[in-house]
Amino acid sequence: MAATLELLTENGLGGVSVDEVARRSGVAKTTIYRHWPVRSALILDACTRLSSQHAAPDTGSFAGDLAALMGGMAQLLRTARWASVTPSIIDAAERDPDLATVHSRIQLEHSAPFQVIISRAVGSGDLPPQTDVQAMIADLLGPLYYRRWFSREPLDDAFVGGITERVLGRT
Amino acid sequence: MAATLELLTENGLGGVSVDEVARRSGVAKTTIYRHWPVRSALILDACTRLSSQHAAPDTGSFAGDLAALMGGMAQLLRTARWASVTPSIIDAAERDPDLATVHSRIQLEHSAPFQVIISRAVGSGDLPPQTDVQAMIADLLGPLYYRRWFSREPLDDAFVGGITERVLGRT
Repeated sequence: MAATLELLTENGLGGVSVDEVARRSGVAKTTIYRHWPVRSALILDACTRLSSQHAAPDTGSFAGDLAALMGGMAQLLRTARWASVTPSIIDAAERDPDLATVHSRIQLEHSAPFQVIISRAVGSGDLPPQTDVQAMIADLLGPLYYRRWFSREPLDDAFVGGITERVLGRT
Repeated sequence: MAATLELLTENGLGGVSVDEVARRSGVAKTTIYRHWPVRSALILDACTRLSSQHAAPDTGSFAGDLAALMGGMAQLLRTARWASVTPSIIDAAERDPDLATVHSRIQLEHSAPFQVIISRAVGSGDLPPQTDVQAMIADLLGPLYYRRWFSREPLDDAFVGGITERVLGRT
C-alpha cells in the first residue's frame, strides 16, 4: 500500500500497475493479488486512504455545519495528495467502468456529509422544504473544485467563506 | 491533426505521442515536427480545435448574455469531445509545466467571455461595483463542471437555468 500511494502521488493513476507496485515494494505479485484481486480494488483502497473521509458535523446550526464542512474540504483541496491524483481518476473514469465506480465512490464520500447536513436543515426548517439538495451541493462544491482544478486560483478563507455566505444568503 | 484528434478522443492525452500520430496518419515525424516543434504545441492546437471558443454575446441585457453563455457551455459539456479529454489535460497539468500552460490557455478561453459580460454589467450598473468577478465566474462555471466531471448528474436545462437564476437573484 505504501508503494501504491507513492506511485499514485508521483505519477497519477497511469503510474500504478501491479507490476510496478511489486517492483517498488519487493512484494510478490501473487501476494498483492491475494489482498487485492484486481487492480481497481488496489486503486480504490489507495484512493480511499488518500482522501480521508469527512463525518457530517453537528454543531447545532446549519451555518456552523456548513462552515465546518467547507473549511475541511478547502483544506483537503489545498494540501491532500488526493487532490493531485483526482484528475487521473476522473480521466480513467471516462473510459474504464471499474474506475468510474471508484470515482463515484470517492465522489459520494465527499458529497454525502453535505447531503446529511442539508437534509437535516430541511427537516428542522432551517432550509425551505423545496430545497434542491443536489443543486445546493453543486453550488457549494462546484466553485471549490473549479478553483482547485480549473482556474487554479487560491482557495483562501475569504473565497470559501464567500461561497457559504452567498448560498446561505439566498435561502 | 485528424489523427491527433482521433487519438485524443480515444485515449486521452496519454495516448498522444508524435510516434503514434506519425503511425496513424502516415505522415513522417520530421514533417510533424516542422508544423509543431514540440508535443505540447501539437496538443494545444488539437485541444483548441476540440473546445471551440465562445465569443462574448451581446444581447442587450446581462441576463440574456448570461443565459446564452451558460447554455453554450452546458451544450459543450454535454456533447463535445473536449469534455472527455479535459480530465487528462488537467492530470498532465499537475505534473508537466508545458501542459499546465496548455490547460491555462483553454481555461482562459472558456472563462474570458464570462469576464467580458460581467465587467460590462458592472460598467453599466446592472451589477454592483463591488462585484467579485472571479468569484462570480466560479459560482457559474463551478456547478456545471461539478456535474459533468464529478457527480456525473445530468446537465439539463432546469439545472443550468437554476444556477443563473440563483446568481442573478442575489445581486
